[in-house]
Amino acid sequence: MTAPLGPVVPTAQAISTLRPLSAEAVRLAPAGLLGGWQARNETATLPHCVTQLDAAGNLANLRRVTGDADGDFNGFWFADTDVHKTLEAAFWSGTATGFVTEAAELLEKAQDADGYLDSYYQDPANRDKQWAELHFSHEMYTAGHLIQAAVAAARSAPADAAAQQVVQVARKFADLLVRRYADSAEVDGHPEVETALVELYRVTGHRPYLDLAARFVDNRGHGVLGEGRFGSPYFQDHEPLRQATEVTGHVVRQLYLLAGAVDVAVETGDEQLLAAAVRLWDSALDSRTYITGGQGSRHRDEAYGDPYELPPDRAYAESCAAIGSFQLAWRLLLATGERKYADEMERLIYNGIAGSTGVDGASFFYSNPLQLRTGHDGSHEDAPSQRLPWFSCACCPPNLARLMASLHTYVATGDADGLQLHLYGAGTVTAGGHTVEVETSYPWDEQVALTVVSTSAPAWTLSLRIPGWCADARLVINGRAEPVDASDGYVRLRREWQPGDRVELTLAMPARTVIAHRRVDAVRGTVALARGPLVYCLEHADLPTALAALPFEDLELDPATEPAAAYHTTGLAPVTLRVHLRASEGVTETLYHDRPGPTPPAAGGVAAAIPYFLWANRKPGPMRVWIPVAAPEA
Amino acid sequence: MTAPLGPVVPTAQAISTLRPLSAEAVRLAPAGLLGGWQARNETATLPHCVTQLDAAGNLANLRRVTGDADGDFNGFWFADTDVHKTLEAAFWSGTATGFVTEAAELLEKAQDADGYLDSYYQDPANRDKQWAELHFSHEMYTAGHLIQAAVAAARSAPADAAAQQVVQVARKFADLLVRRYADSAEVDGHPEVETALVELYRVTGHRPYLDLAARFVDNRGHGVLGEGRFGSPYFQDHEPLRQATEVTGHVVRQLYLLAGAVDVAVETGDEQLLAAAVRLWDSALDSRTYITGGQGSRHRDEAYGDPYELPPDRAYAESCAAIGSFQLAWRLLLATGERKYADEMERLIYNGIAGSTGVDGASFFYSNPLQLRTGHDGSHEDAPSQRLPWFSCACCPPNLARLMASLHTYVATGDADGLQLHLYGAGTVTAGGHTVEVETSYPWDEQVALTVVSTSAPAWTLSLRIPGWCADARLVINGRAEPVDASDGYVRLRREWQPGDRVELTLAMPARTVIAHRRVDAVRGTVALARGPLVYCLEHADLPTALAALPFEDLELDPATEPAAAYHTTGLAPVTLRVHLRASEGVTETLYHDRPGPTPPAAGGVAAAIPYFLWANRKPGPMRVWIPVAAPEA
Repeated sequence: MTAPLGPVVPTAQAISTLRPLSAEAVRLAPAGLLGGWQARNETATLPHCVTQLDAAGNLANLRRVTGDADGDFNGFWFADTDVHKTLEAAFWSGTATGFVTEAAELLEKAQDADGYLDSYYQDPANRDKQWAELHFSHEMYTAGHLIQAAVAAARSAPADAAAQQVVQVARKFADLLVRRYADSAEVDGHPEVETALVELYRVTGHRPYLDLAARFVDNRGHGVLGEGRFGSPYFQDHEPLRQATEVTGHVVRQLYLLAGAVDVAVETGDEQLLAAAVRLWDSALDSRTYITGGQGSRHRDEAYGDPYELPPDRAYAESCAAIGSFQLAWRLLLATGERKYADEMERLIYNGIAGSTGVDGASFFYSNPLQLRTGHDGSHEDAPSQRLPWFSCACCPPNLARLMASLHTYVATGDADGLQLHLYGAGTVTAGGHTVEVETSYPWDEQVALTVVSTSAPAWTLSLRIPGWCADARLVINGRAEPVDASDGYVRLRREWQPGDRVELTLAMPARTVIAHRRVDAVRGTVALARGPLVYCLEHADLPTALAALPFEDLELDPATEPAAAYHTTGLAPVTLRVHLRASEGVTETLYHDRPGPTPPAAGGVAAAIPYFLWANRKPGPMRVWIPVAAPEA
Repeated sequence: MTAPLGPVVPTAQAISTLRPLSAEAVRLAPAGLLGGWQARNETATLPHCVTQLDAAGNLANLRRVTGDADGDFNGFWFADTDVHKTLEAAFWSGTATGFVTEAAELLEKAQDADGYLDSYYQDPANRDKQWAELHFSHEMYTAGHLIQAAVAAARSAPADAAAQQVVQVARKFADLLVRRYADSAEVDGHPEVETALVELYRVTGHRPYLDLAARFVDNRGHGVLGEGRFGSPYFQDHEPLRQATEVTGHVVRQLYLLAGAVDVAVETGDEQLLAAAVRLWDSALDSRTYITGGQGSRHRDEAYGDPYELPPDRAYAESCAAIGSFQLAWRLLLATGERKYADEMERLIYNGIAGSTGVDGASFFYSNPLQLRTGHDGSHEDAPSQRLPWFSCACCPPNLARLMASLHTYVATGDADGLQLHLYGAGTVTAGGHTVEVETSYPWDEQVALTVVSTSAPAWTLSLRIPGWCADARLVINGRAEPVDASDGYVRLRREWQPGDRVELTLAMPARTVIAHRRVDAVRGTVALARGPLVYCLEHADLPTALAALPFEDLELDPATEPAAAYHTTGLAPVTLRVHLRASEGVTETLYHDRPGPTPPAAGGVAAAIPYFLWANRKPGPMRVWIPVAAPEA
């Protein structure tokens, strides 16, 4: 029996610099941040999603098809995908087996004889629109998420009856897609099926799935979806991906498309397509990504904006976009081995992704702003001031669940020569017969200690990522300081490792003030605070009384003092940043004026900035990542 | 026969500090800016709208009802309103008589026997939804615009057959509304009928119209419209207007509601309601209005944002919102006589409103951003980089047409004691038997010369508004300098005026740099340029070669030099502002970084800033109102 695997397992023939490990290779200790999130996902988020699928009527939609439920269709027309994503999460985690059994049976029963399965379009009222409105219908997007659930089933629990049932259902739907679209010029408005089909090919070896995915990637970009409400760039249908130079349109669509394109490219050896994906990744990262890793500057069409259009208050930064960006970065990391992709995964997991879930594991942000003003008009669920348990479009919570359930598979890779550690979390990593124990409370602590527990080869290379944010990395091996040579972003330690060998890596984490490119108009004159991979923010709940009484929006950072880390044994965050703030009392400026009026004397004080990902876990109040810097005292 | 009147004519019983003049009282000379716009509206915009109504199928929609056309319904379900607004514009201007005759007949023929008239809901496919989805249907909004056309008809051309036809149709619809909703708790999702019904009451004296308007104002605010897609604040239905303290939701709806509320308040003597409207106006002006007078910070729901949320790049600032704000300010000016409302009308007409139409008079902005970046993703018609001839939702062009056609009626008011001049444009003003000629090329020129042409009373008061932006007003009467006492915003000259008396008012217009309140994060570290009532902007087309070669977004204002006015006899603008700009060449900053890198030497030069309202009339390129200020040289 082969070892269980995680998401994204390129075949042996694929373009691939690094190889994913088996799903059993990494164990994350629940005491660490990564392991803690994974544990919380299993105990809180995933059960919450299962409950919500019942409460919100997603399962009832499928039962309407089987004749086991009455009533109206519930939610958005792609509501099935929430079932599929929760199912995928359940397979990766190996829990929620009751739900898995029930959902697998329900899906099998609801499936049409020809393989079609989409409870919205199986509704007699909508049957005539089946396959007829692909720009809008999400039918293949829905198929894609079903297939992803099946891939998780096949890789996690190949011998499990429910898993086999889901694989069978998904293949039947995939086979229908192949029959119907193998020679078609059509494409779905929302990418997702591309990456799913490649993954299904990887699981089954059935080449038509890969060919169909490749076809869909190339079908797109010729205006086949029409203009829709927001124009063809919304769908990335305005020009072929191979020619595109800029990310555009709906962010999640763009990122899912790119993930699928990378999967196709590596499996077909298509270097041109891979280069296009790299080019678009660069375009997103160079000018359209928030400091949290979030992407999406526009609410109206959930879209990228113009270059450098990055408003912190109206950041859309959809949770699903952060997940999509993480998935894309992982694929590019595997293909190229370049550190920058792992850096981005780290930024995302500790900021953009982590912040989307509350400490309870059962409340979520759909959009993830970097600023919340006093008096925020949080009347929309896509821009609330507090996390919500669920959404009318509930794509994010189960997407978070499936990512967190497989989080351990993204931590490390292997190759013939050894082991590469990309994300640091307490736990153990086993690959190629070597086992390494990782002890750390990273990113609270700057030390990561690795102990070789067992080893099977005379000499192999342990590669450790030195994050791009780190200006001072130090290394001690078996008590002896060693030089850190990380010219390509990794320190590569080739040795005849012995059990008990100990590597102590220190990634110095002074508090940092970060500024944005001068073209990011929205944050001119401000700085962000960071420490290690964590972006910090100022939240009203942490202000001392004197500062809390002032208008939050008037607080400025005192430029004469540097922020410094403060360590705590209790409270929301083990490490906060002490910052000196000040604000003038009783400012009476008009909205626009010719000259600054006399500024009343400023009150000042010290406040604690908390990690961004922990905001909005206490009483509601304003927050900001980018803090204005006061003019130096005259 | 009574003199023709313009929009908004409170009855003699109304709360009213100032009285509008007859529609014949003011003649604007086409050589002036206001008169030129009005003339262009008559020769270009209005005929363009008439043509578009045919091309876009708005008239065909009505002909489908009369059985004179086939095919599908065209455009949005409230497409009739474009017909009504164009008709209103035609009545105010006294032109387009062919269209007026045709439209009047068509409306009469299309109207149901009970008075109902809405070509979307008269479609047999939609009949069952008539009156059944008021949160969405715009049926009363449509009725309101029909009534406004009828009010224009009655006031402009009471003896005209087509005008009488339109009045009859509108009254029949209004009577249906009274029968159906006089005791109802319902209300339309989009306000407009409130002000229309009060105006119809003013024309007809028929009290039930006023009562129904008052009822609609008070029906709103009790959640009667449901949550909809964006929550009840979107409709201003979350709390009664009388209790509200902040503007919220869809901007045009909020402003139209406030206009209607003021109309109701002044006619019913409802001081509480008037105070609520004043309070909400203040809330908009204090923290939610662009320097151009535009309102609306969010594209997603065409809405106000949080206080001080005023992004220049994503300014929605819908043209219709600027028009609504102008109409509201006029009503509050009449009610209170306070200068601030006239100041706002001036800011709007010269900036937010003027900028929405191209110099050709036949191209329009729907949204009016204050910044356009290099590489703007202008794929949406609501955020294009150039003006467009028409829109799928074409509310703005005919709205501009009806405002411009009646622009002369907003320039001056009268009272028992004389004449008040609020907006300065070349032309003549006649009221109370006095005629004054106004000679000026304001706002290009800072001099306004007024000559008394004829006069009928022994002593009367000529009141001249001293704009809030003006720090230096000077007055010469018959060659003699006089002190300027404008403690309430108006210099009030009471005299026994004689024909030939000459008043020379100088409103000094040095170039100004304007800064925004510290809480407007989006423009921190920048200034705007202004001169007189005009806001200026930097547009790529005006850059000298050396500066044009640099990234537009990197240009900064040199703080060591002051902008200065430059006068031109040809070109787009008679007065531009000379500014010293600089930018570093070859900036290679990353998107986020810990310390500013070494800044390469800066290239510098002088550029001409043009009035904001004239941007986007040459080759497309980036533009910005708020210009970053360079750090002083070390």
